[in-house]
Amino acid sequence: MALMTGEQYIESLRKLDTQVYLFGRKEPNWVDHPIIRPSINCVAMTYDLAQDPEHEDLMTATSNLTGRKVNRFAHLHMGPGDLIKKVKMQRLLGRKTASCFQRCVGMDAFNAVFSTTYECDKAHGTNYHENFKNFVIYVQDNDLTVDGAMTDPKGDRGKSQGQQADSDLFVRVVERRPDGIVVRGAKAHQTGSINSHEHLVMPTQAVAEGDADYAVSFAVPSDAPGLFMIYGRQASDTRKLEPGADIDLGNKRFGGQEALVVFDNVFVPNERIFMNGEYDFAGMLVERFAGYHRQSYGGCKVGVGDVIIGAAALAAEYNGASKASHVKDKLIEMTHLNETLYSCGIACSCEGYCTEAGNYQIDLLLANVCKQNVTRFPYEIVRLAEDIAGGLMVTMPSETDFKSDLKVPTPSDLTVGEWCGKFFAGIEGVTTENRMRILRFLENICLGSSAVGYRTESMHGAGSPQAQRIMIARQGDIDGKKQLAKDIAGIKD
Amino acid sequence: MALMTGEQYIESLRKLDTQVYLFGRKEPNWVDHPIIRPSINCVAMTYDLAQDPEHEDLMTATSNLTGRKVNRFAHLHMGPGDLIKKVKMQRLLGRKTASCFQRCVGMDAFNAVFSTTYECDKAHGTNYHENFKNFVIYVQDNDLTVDGAMTDPKGDRGKSQGQQADSDLFVRVVERRPDGIVVRGAKAHQTGSINSHEHLVMPTQAVAEGDADYAVSFAVPSDAPGLFMIYGRQASDTRKLEPGADIDLGNKRFGGQEALVVFDNVFVPNERIFMNGEYDFAGMLVERFAGYHRQSYGGCKVGVGDVIIGAAALAAEYNGASKASHVKDKLIEMTHLNETLYSCGIACSCEGYCTEAGNYQIDLLLANVCKQNVTRFPYEIVRLAEDIAGGLMVTMPSETDFKSDLKVPTPSDLTVGEWCGKFFAGIEGVTTENRMRILRFLENICLGSSAVGYRTESMHGAGSPQAQRIMIARQGDIDGKKQLAKDIAGIKD
Amino acid sequence: MALMTGEQYIESLRKLDTQVYLFGRKEPNWVDHPIIRPSINCVAMTYDLAQDPEHEDLMTATSNLTGRKVNRFAHLHMGPGDLIKKVKMQRLLGRKTASCFQRCVGMDAFNAVFSTTYECDKAHGTNYHENFKNFVIYVQDNDLTVDGAMTDPKGDRGKSQGQQADSDLFVRVVERRPDGIVVRGAKAHQTGSINSHEHLVMPTQAVAEGDADYAVSFAVPSDAPGLFMIYGRQASDTRKLEPGADIDLGNKRFGGQEALVVFDNVFVPNERIFMNGEYDFAGMLVERFAGYHRQSYGGCKVGVGDVIIGAAALAAEYNGASKASHVKDKLIEMTHLNETLYSCGIACSCEGYCTEAGNYQIDLLLANVCKQNVTRFPYEIVRLAEDIAGGLMVTMPSETDFKSDLKVPTPSDLTVGEWCGKFFAGIEGVTTENRMRILRFLENICLGSSAVGYRTESMHGAGSPQAQRIMIARQGDIDGKKQLAKDIAGIKD
Amino acid sequence: MALMTGEQYIESLRKLDTQVYLFGRKEPNWVDHPIIRPSINCVAMTYDLAQDPEHEDLMTATSNLTGRKVNRFAHLHMGPGDLIKKVKMQRLLGRKTASCFQRCVGMDAFNAVFSTTYECDKAHGTNYHENFKNFVIYVQDNDLTVDGAMTDPKGDRGKSQGQQADSDLFVRVVERRPDGIVVRGAKAHQTGSINSHEHLVMPTQAVAEGDADYAVSFAVPSDAPGLFMIYGRQASDTRKLEPGADIDLGNKRFGGQEALVVFDNVFVPNERIFMNGEYDFAGMLVERFAGYHRQSYGGCKVGVGDVIIGAAALAAEYNGASKASHVKDKLIEMTHLNETLYSCGIACSCEGYCTEAGNYQIDLLLANVCKQNVTRFPYEIVRLAEDIAGGLMVTMPSETDFKSDLKVPTPSDLTVGEWCGKFFAGIEGVTTENRMRILRFLENICLGSSAVGYRTESMHGAGSPQAQRIMIARQGDIDGKKQLAKDIAGIKD
Repeated sequence: MALMTGEQYIESLRKLDTQVYLFGRKEPNWVDHPIIRPSINCVAMTYDLAQDPEHEDLMTATSNLTGRKVNRFAHLHMGPGDLIKKVKMQRLLGRKTASCFQRCVGMDAFNAVFSTTYECDKAHGTNYHENFKNFVIYVQDNDLTVDGAMTDPKGDRGKSQGQQADSDLFVRVVERRPDGIVVRGAKAHQTGSINSHEHLVMPTQAVAEGDADYAVSFAVPSDAPGLFMIYGRQASDTRKLEPGADIDLGNKRFGGQEALVVFDNVFVPNERIFMNGEYDFAGMLVERFAGYHRQSYGGCKVGVGDVIIGAAALAAEYNGASKASHVKDKLIEMTHLNETLYSCGIACSCEGYCTEAGNYQIDLLLANVCKQNVTRFPYEIVRLAEDIAGGLMVTMPSETDFKSDLKVPTPSDLTVGEWCGKFFAGIEGVTTENRMRILRFLENICLGSSAVGYRTESMHGAGSPQAQRIMIARQGDIDGKKQLAKDIAGIKD
Repeated sequence: MALMTGEQYIESLRKLDTQVYLFGRKEPNWVDHPIIRPSINCVAMTYDLAQDPEHEDLMTATSNLTGRKVNRFAHLHMGPGDLIKKVKMQRLLGRKTASCFQRCVGMDAFNAVFSTTYECDKAHGTNYHENFKNFVIYVQDNDLTVDGAMTDPKGDRGKSQGQQADSDLFVRVVERRPDGIVVRGAKAHQTGSINSHEHLVMPTQAVAEGDADYAVSFAVPSDAPGLFMIYGRQASDTRKLEPGADIDLGNKRFGGQEALVVFDNVFVPNERIFMNGEYDFAGMLVERFAGYHRQSYGGCKVGVGDVIIGAAALAAEYNGASKASHVKDKLIEMTHLNETLYSCGIACSCEGYCTEAGNYQIDLLLANVCKQNVTRFPYEIVRLAEDIAGGLMVTMPSETDFKSDLKVPTPSDLTVGEWCGKFFAGIEGVTTENRMRILRFLENICLGSSAVGYRTESMHGAGSPQAQRIMIARQGDIDGKKQLAKDIAGIKD
Repeated sequence: MALMTGEQYIESLRKLDTQVYLFGRKEPNWVDHPIIRPSINCVAMTYDLAQDPEHEDLMTATSNLTGRKVNRFAHLHMGPGDLIKKVKMQRLLGRKTASCFQRCVGMDAFNAVFSTTYECDKAHGTNYHENFKNFVIYVQDNDLTVDGAMTDPKGDRGKSQGQQADSDLFVRVVERRPDGIVVRGAKAHQTGSINSHEHLVMPTQAVAEGDADYAVSFAVPSDAPGLFMIYGRQASDTRKLEPGADIDLGNKRFGGQEALVVFDNVFVPNERIFMNGEYDFAGMLVERFAGYHRQSYGGCKVGVGDVIIGAAALAAEYNGASKASHVKDKLIEMTHLNETLYSCGIACSCEGYCTEAGNYQIDLLLANVCKQNVTRFPYEIVRLAEDIAGGLMVTMPSETDFKSDLKVPTPSDLTVGEWCGKFFAGIEGVTTENRMRILRFLENICLGSSAVGYRTESMHGAGSPQAQRIMIARQGDIDGKKQLAKDIAGIKD
Repeated sequence: MALMTGEQYIESLRKLDTQVYLFGRKEPNWVDHPIIRPSINCVAMTYDLAQDPEHEDLMTATSNLTGRKVNRFAHLHMGPGDLIKKVKMQRLLGRKTASCFQRCVGMDAFNAVFSTTYECDKAHGTNYHENFKNFVIYVQDNDLTVDGAMTDPKGDRGKSQGQQADSDLFVRVVERRPDGIVVRGAKAHQTGSINSHEHLVMPTQAVAEGDADYAVSFAVPSDAPGLFMIYGRQASDTRKLEPGADIDLGNKRFGGQEALVVFDNVFVPNERIFMNGEYDFAGMLVERFAGYHRQSYGGCKVGVGDVIIGAAALAAEYNGASKASHVKDKLIEMTHLNETLYSCGIACSCEGYCTEAGNYQIDLLLANVCKQNVTRFPYEIVRLAEDIAGGLMVTMPSETDFKSDLKVPTPSDLTVGEWCGKFFAGIEGVTTENRMRILRFLENICLGSSAVGYRTESMHGAGSPQAQRIMIARQGDIDGKKQLAKDIAGIKD
């Protein structure tokens, strides 16, 4: 079956009976909703670029399961080369959308579930790996987008799954039938969930023996009975609803998406189950998924960073400041930080290793280091961008003012739009509109809807900073390093 | 005349025929406009707190010109004690509003124009100081809010005032009459300009001899003929227009304001002129105003920082993470950074000196150091707040979802609002609503309309970072320090 | 009695029978030992500057106890003005010595013991305050230098005083007699202890009821029977022993000093006891001393910073790089950081408050913030200095090479010294020797003996960073800040 | 010919008539000089590890020129795999020596000269590549250590080579003969030059047409007539001369080395010339060497960092603080920073590309990013190590005190050594000596002779920070990024 185009992907979403709630109402035609559509356009870009011969090498791969050509987002990484291409593909998409393109969570989940089910089967005699292989082939052959769903609402962070006041605060098995299981709970902060055909659910943290019902992994389609989503709102989201909105959106075409996915007693047939009570493998699955996903940020956010650097350079050029040594130095610093993130993405890929199942896992230590840097440097990149952009980024009138032909009754007899055009002009040869465009883009990235993706998602996506620090502590081999120091210092115990 | 209450202040605004344009339209009842009103409420707080005996010592002072009690925002600082109280007053207001309360620019302009006109008169035999004293007495006695208007649009930053393609890109004198002057141009990024009764205009940078028409300072009322404002839009501004909006606003009652103020051939009578071509004093006026205003940030943003720290602590408490050592450490770091800013505000006040005119100027080096830190630390405070808050800050559904009683047709038969309440609950004993409130407050500060005030204004208000660095270089006495090093190192030239 | 000159101070040291051990030997003439003498010269500077009319206002004060003129290092601070002058005096001395001048610990101890004994007497009916006043008058009238001795060796940091394997690891009372007490233990890292006439001993941390013998404060002269010191060695210390050493010392005349002070059953007469078992006041004494001493760093290290900035500027000038924009920017950054420290020193002084005893205590929160910054910024200042200095700072030959007239048998027939002079020349008009001098000064500050004082002492002096963070947490009023956030966010409990 | 052992290497040095000046004297038996020997031991480790089967894969390679097994330090990198192994080999050696092992400069020079001579020959019809291949084969077959000598003294940084007051401040050709050239000048900061068999000289910066005599590259043995070295002194270097010194050295066995290498009219035969006036290739050679050498720091300093982290962990353990959450967090941060550096080293290797000559060049942008981080993170790692170590690191008595059996005449009748042992004890079960050892190791790294290698060399080795920023600016493709921003923001020129 051929890979889908972006347009075909969008049409495929219409065929699903996905239940979406937004602003307190059910939204039947969510595919065309102005707030949702930009996020769909991002996912569509993952299809369109795969059709482009220029990007074919990065965007597609040959399935190890079928030998058929698949979108790389549906691929199992079969070597460090695949892991590196993944990061480069993500940087490319960040450069093209300046947004979160959402399809990574599925890819990262595939690879983690693939290797974990293999080892779980070996330990427990289960048959999850075969189930999962069939699911991957189905996804690959139909070129589907999959939500890799991990994060539970979690309630009181001081309590484990079973200790919560409400047992539903983590997804769990509530019923086991001969033909399958019934699950209940929710997944929060689900990136691109509405835009996905399928949901691949995993536990959100290690599971203790007594909480085995929370050790569950499975896949269901987006329109499974009992499943629905509530849309998360973002800063400045309703600008997209303003009639004729263009400049003020900053990034008119693309955007991210987060939603709450509720499982209200959803049935999962046996062949779609990948973990069902094997609590001793929950931690491995979480760690591996998190590892892949922390690698991902060394690609996608770097691509967005490229656009921000370019925008800041343009903003400086447009107001005549591009020659100032401090501006040049800030652009260098932004580049330096951005490429440091990329280096981490590349390094944890290059140092990947083969799992027992045969696909490749990134280097866990370096992937956690990668993500830890992502919780810092984008904030500094944004700060520098705001510095270069100047205050106008947040004080300029709305697009409607710029376009208004209402006469202001003062001596010059100009319209509101003419006054805006006059006073917000930068250097000669650049229209005021273009100057506004680049400043609105930066506003969107720094403190608008895209800031959600570039900043807060950099902080919390794939785990909050402390999660990485715990992993760095575990992987850092402090004892080995103590021995090195003893050897040099002449200490013999 | 008694000081006004907040309510009286608001009513006084209605009596002005201020011309305000917003979203391409003229807004006749701007005082009650939901987007504008929160910023008015902030200014009103500067009146209300002055009525409160608890805060009287900080909020009011005795005029050196009249001996009458005045709002400190209309006061000339007569010693380091006054300068310090100014900073404490600003911190207080930041704590009460978590916003920019706008009235500082006028206060800072008063003090700068007061001392500069005195020295200008001495050098040029002009009579500006007397003009200005009369203006200050009028403002004090009528308890007015004044926009200290400095920043011109500036066009091409690589060119001086007179080199611009459009001569109006800096405010200038276009006509000199026996009874006054006619001025033309605009002031951009004007904080609280619409909420002000008067505008005290100053040059935006040093002026060379050939550009003497740009060396102009004067005051006009907000409804002077030929003067009008175009409102600057902010991130998430239209949330304030959503029916019943409360939680999603984050800070329902307060907010900041920036506008473009256009002077389309505005007439200024002689008694309101404080500089008219004396280009050799433009630089002094700019430097002194900037000095005071850079001090200000060591108070106001610290007050907002206090609220952010409290909100982050609450967010951690509400989700059961307040005992985590890394959370406690981040709150300490936020406090540390915030108090460092405060220390800079206090220090430049404490080290203030008496001008020839008799009022006190802050220590220029330390005030620039203060503001330089403000261009950095609030960004880190915000980053840490986002870290503690968790991703939900930017992924949760809208207030209308939380309040929706639409039934979701799944087995549990709950409403959208009930599902939201269920899955976004934190610790027991705290309502989900309260958790949402604190997260929306943080969203507003980190990347909503308040981020404009807390972050970008911290960057560019009172001058962008490089402006402070230039002043630090000038004030840093490198030659004196070289001599110290020579003495120690035994170098005799 | 008149204040001593530096020379008189040095002579006064000879009259003491202070027991000093250095490099495993007893050092009878320690006053003239090349390793020790630079640290004595620093203390002497505190005497000499007090004789200088230019600095009299900062260096001296009028005793509140006697009305007589005293060296400010022996003064009790009677208002914020005194606290501010203290900081300025310290900055002055830092500028003159580029070293730790050691006499601050005594001054800080005076002020802490003075107010604590007053409150202790009130609570316990003891008579320590009178004892202490007499001691202060003795010190003031004889213009003595006093070691404020706080830090015990502490052994296992995981255990309290009484739990240690060796009971001597904290100073304690081992015998109580009618006429006094016998104490035992040691104080580590004692700055300037050898150069002091007296030792004012305090507990190092809060004391629990069962450990009351560790709650002890007293004063003894440096040559009290049973008291001796072991000198701490520093990086590059033996360069001072090299014959003819000058340039390679970097700072030939001045330096710091740390020693272990051992109390091997030292008798303390009743009138020199200031705490003897009142464990409930140990914590207050520690907190107050630490507060003053954390303020101190906002003065002394700033003065050293001034010299470093000057030296870096000279190094750049001497190699022709002073015009480079990145060099200028680094000097600005160094100045900015240094003045931020100063601002913290000034602010915690300006915000000082009156104790019950009548002397002034600094603002505890801001003083801890001050010191916390000192644990960071000097490291960055040093890093920037190393950047500007260039690698030659650590790769150049020794002074003996520069001065060597040994002929090198190669075609040019030059001496070793001539070759050095030739190849390490910088710009024309500056001797190679002067270039070397400034680089060796920087080497000394960055990684020589002065680095001990400027870097490591900035880290650990007056308490390691975590000690300040604990205080910031305690003083930060998180609950008050939570309430502010609730008010703004509309949360009513 | 078999690879040498460390011992054979040391013996091979004795056979050279290398002229070494130190402390103003000629040092005939420099191989055994206590200050020099530790640096020789470091280089010897590059030989010994190559004999160790465990490390053979990293330490050796198969020559692309001869097919014979060679030490990797003499290898031309034939693919990204070689580049990555280079970084891993460097990390290994850093872990084993905690010092600069010096042999990298030669390796980096080989690879840069190899590819540059190829392209130069193509452009100019010269025969340098063949010359150079022969030289490499000679080095490989004899397993030699080579000083890659680039940095000239440079004099006045504001002037080019030919503008200097002294023409010798950059190495240049002073005479051209039929059989070769005569060169004159010096190379400063030469790492391991004395310990090298050969010197491979390169220009230090781009050369303009008029300065073509400065465009020269060649190789000469260390004992070539007219060549001599003057040793650079380091912080605390003479501790190595103290009788019985062990603990106080911190790192007794290993250390770095920098020297000035003077070429006083040295003759170079034709077959050893690799550039002779082709000024248009000087820039390429510099850029390529710098690129490789900037990569190197992503390996060697990371290895040293490993030892520092281990030492800090031990220091905390020894004083009972290893459970403190802030200590654990600081170790995590050190690990995080160290692994970020490693990631940059790996990434620029992984992204290497094939030169026209067939060997592999690292990715220039990422290598510069790598080194730029090295100019920052080691300083923060050191700061954190000093924080964890505690003040004792710089205040403890000398080793001779610890070992002294001189009785102190006080009641307890203990020796100086016993007092030291008593009061500097940490947790039970660890000897005071071992605690001292780890603190002295840290002192040596933070501000002793090893600080020269770990800190200052991290700053300036392979080019000072600004050099990397210039390269980052050049390689950052700002124009491409501007276009990305235009595409997203909807800007069509």
